[in-house]
Amino acid sequence: MSRLVMKFGGTSVANVERIRNAARHVKREVEAGREVAVVVSAMSGVTNELVAFCQEAAPIYDHSEYDAIVASGELVTAGLLAIVLKEMGFNARSWQGWQIPLLTDDAHGAARIAGIDGAKIISGFADKQIAVIAGFQGLHAATGRVTTLGRGGSDTSAVAIAAAIGADRCDIYTDVDGVYTSDPRIVHKARRLERVTFEEMLEMASLGAKVLQVRSVEVAMVHKVKLFVRSSFDDPAKPNSGTLICDEEDIVEQQVVTGIAFSRDEAQLTLRRVADKPGVAAAIFMPLAEANINVDMIIQVVSDDTTTTDITFTVPTAEFARAKAILEDRRGAIGYATLQGAQDVVKVSAIGIGMRSHSGVAAKAFKALADKGVNIRAITTSEIKFSVLIDEAYTELAVRTLHSLYGLDAAPVG
Amino acid sequence: MSRLVMKFGGTSVANVERIRNAARHVKREVEAGREVAVVVSAMSGVTNELVAFCQEAAPIYDHSEYDAIVASGELVTAGLLAIVLKEMGFNARSWQGWQIPLLTDDAHGAARIAGIDGAKIISGFADKQIAVIAGFQGLHAATGRVTTLGRGGSDTSAVAIAAAIGADRCDIYTDVDGVYTSDPRIVHKARRLERVTFEEMLEMASLGAKVLQVRSVEVAMVHKVKLFVRSSFDDPAKPNSGTLICDEEDIVEQQVVTGIAFSRDEAQLTLRRVADKPGVAAAIFMPLAEANINVDMIIQVVSDDTTTTDITFTVPTAEFARAKAILEDRRGAIGYATLQGAQDVVKVSAIGIGMRSHSGVAAKAFKALADKGVNIRAITTSEIKFSVLIDEAYTELAVRTLHSLYGLDAAPVG
Repeated sequence: MSRLVMKFGGTSVANVERIRNAARHVKREVEAGREVAVVVSAMSGVTNELVAFCQEAAPIYDHSEYDAIVASGELVTAGLLAIVLKEMGFNARSWQGWQIPLLTDDAHGAARIAGIDGAKIISGFADKQIAVIAGFQGLHAATGRVTTLGRGGSDTSAVAIAAAIGADRCDIYTDVDGVYTSDPRIVHKARRLERVTFEEMLEMASLGAKVLQVRSVEVAMVHKVKLFVRSSFDDPAKPNSGTLICDEEDIVEQQVVTGIAFSRDEAQLTLRRVADKPGVAAAIFMPLAEANINVDMIIQVVSDDTTTTDITFTVPTAEFARAKAILEDRRGAIGYATLQGAQDVVKVSAIGIGMRSHSGVAAKAFKALADKGVNIRAITTSEIKFSVLIDEAYTELAVRTLHSLYGLDAAPVG
Repeated sequence: MSRLVMKFGGTSVANVERIRNAARHVKREVEAGREVAVVVSAMSGVTNELVAFCQEAAPIYDHSEYDAIVASGELVTAGLLAIVLKEMGFNARSWQGWQIPLLTDDAHGAARIAGIDGAKIISGFADKQIAVIAGFQGLHAATGRVTTLGRGGSDTSAVAIAAAIGADRCDIYTDVDGVYTSDPRIVHKARRLERVTFEEMLEMASLGAKVLQVRSVEVAMVHKVKLFVRSSFDDPAKPNSGTLICDEEDIVEQQVVTGIAFSRDEAQLTLRRVADKPGVAAAIFMPLAEANINVDMIIQVVSDDTTTTDITFTVPTAEFARAKAILEDRRGAIGYATLQGAQDVVKVSAIGIGMRSHSGVAAKAFKALADKGVNIRAITTSEIKFSVLIDEAYTELAVRTLHSLYGLDAAPVG
């Protein structure tokens, strides 16, 4: 018998009527003969409200109490979905994280899953019982306290539970019908992808496509759990397709480039006339690392005179001020002439597992962008993606140019 | 070292500002050198909202899921109070019912406490840790599921925890400053009682004084836990007094009558010309008992002819229609001429442990009411109370008359 995990996010369980609709999706799968475990998020807005209570209670709050508080939202959704499923005539019961148990470490607020005992859920299947699981949460065994997996953590709960119970697939129901070649709000010709590899999805998720929590894709990749992203707003009786996130070998025809992502969460810092000598990079980047500031793109160019260089790099926008202050503090130790910063920059990336076997993919992009007058401030590349840092004003132009360049545009309608 | 349980109800933790105020009451007790366990209800309105979700999900919902859902409200308050106490510099942690554990039977929705392990809470006291406990909830050990103790159950949680950890007293913080000789909205001369016995409080609670859940008083009486009802709206630095609910021997000077209670939740049924023969009472009251209808006052009077009697009794207003239908169904079996009903009746009661040793207490009342032209439809008495059923229109007059009669009126101000 095939076994399925179905995960419903906040907008898919926003109220009792939406929960009833989610139950109809569950009904379809159960009636198709599948053993089903459902993982639910809190009703949309609830987690934000609970976080706001914590912030109102204390500016710096205790994270173990934060977890006890915010994990409560999912309990309500799980109970309500179980009630609705029982009302429909199914055997169903809710599971809280500690009841399964889903064990985690004690990193409250962003705990990592240590192990899941799937036995009780699986034995429920023998009684045709649908397991309705509160996502986002777990139990730290040694302290006996409730933990949470961080925002978006219900995706990770769902994938980890799918691995623990040996599910054939994990369906992620959300408010969009899959993963697109680019953001449809920017690129009107963006297409839904039928399939995408875990590696590509990881790059897309971390580059700003917000469909799935990055960690859930990592867990799915490690445990080879097929993920299917689909819409809960489809007619439950006749659902449309979605996007399957799977192993490379499950994809017959590889595209060279699968998608174009972009991130506005970038800020650029440039140190002018840094002495061109060993150890200077460490002097710059060690203090930033110690302050937990994530440096992304780095380029170094020879400046006007030959004894110094200019060093440019990017940090998340939220860390810009802190990074700038650290570098100004250490001006003497580093030795630079001026420090320049820019926040109106954007990182545009092309992702495709086919890049591994095709050369010159990025070079084509540099030429196409130059032809449109888009100035490239920095470049990074990996095996399956490349990124360019450009002025924010050129975002749409650059994303659309690359989308067309790699043949991703949808065929015109009609 | 003295040990205290402090319980805060819904209006006392209605928002983060009120929770901060509750924390100041806790601070006062801790700084006075007491070991403190705090029991909290859900923020006011939250439980009603969760119950409404259940009702919307299914007309007849699963009670184990109902419990999983409604118990979540208290988790939020407990976590927030712990955060606030830590912010104030105290060691504090929240406890969910299953973490203690507070064990119950599996009567979901109205579970009874089976046992509480106070060890973890007491060992926290050794680290000067304040225990902040989510009220209203427990764990059924065999199924591992969350249970709740019924509406108002946090009072019972608090008293049972006080017994389990050997607390010297259990303070119930609410939105009134104690137990009154009568409802101050009706009797403007009502006074706050300094002390009242468990037995009197039980009668008052079940007769319509809504300060405390009845079961919490029962548990307190059995385990000899002194209960102190007081206001959370007092200045935490200089709190006023409240009402101590305690053993008879802790009350030096007994009043004959301690309070006048009344309940509008009464409906009267009268069967005219019932055959005056053995077995007729059983024919009437057995079917009602089987339908779980609680019959309260019963009087039987000889009617016009001597072979039949009239039987009058009361049921809760909510059961009036059902009781009437049952009796109409059985008209043949019982054998009566007519069935009359009245819903505009009220039960007025005088309660006082001193009645045990004073005779003629009720007789004085019958005379005083007759003097005011109040017609008495039925009477019941017990060792420490008597009740009269009268027309609802005379409620205020009767309650005030008895309040004055037994010397309960406050001295005029000024």
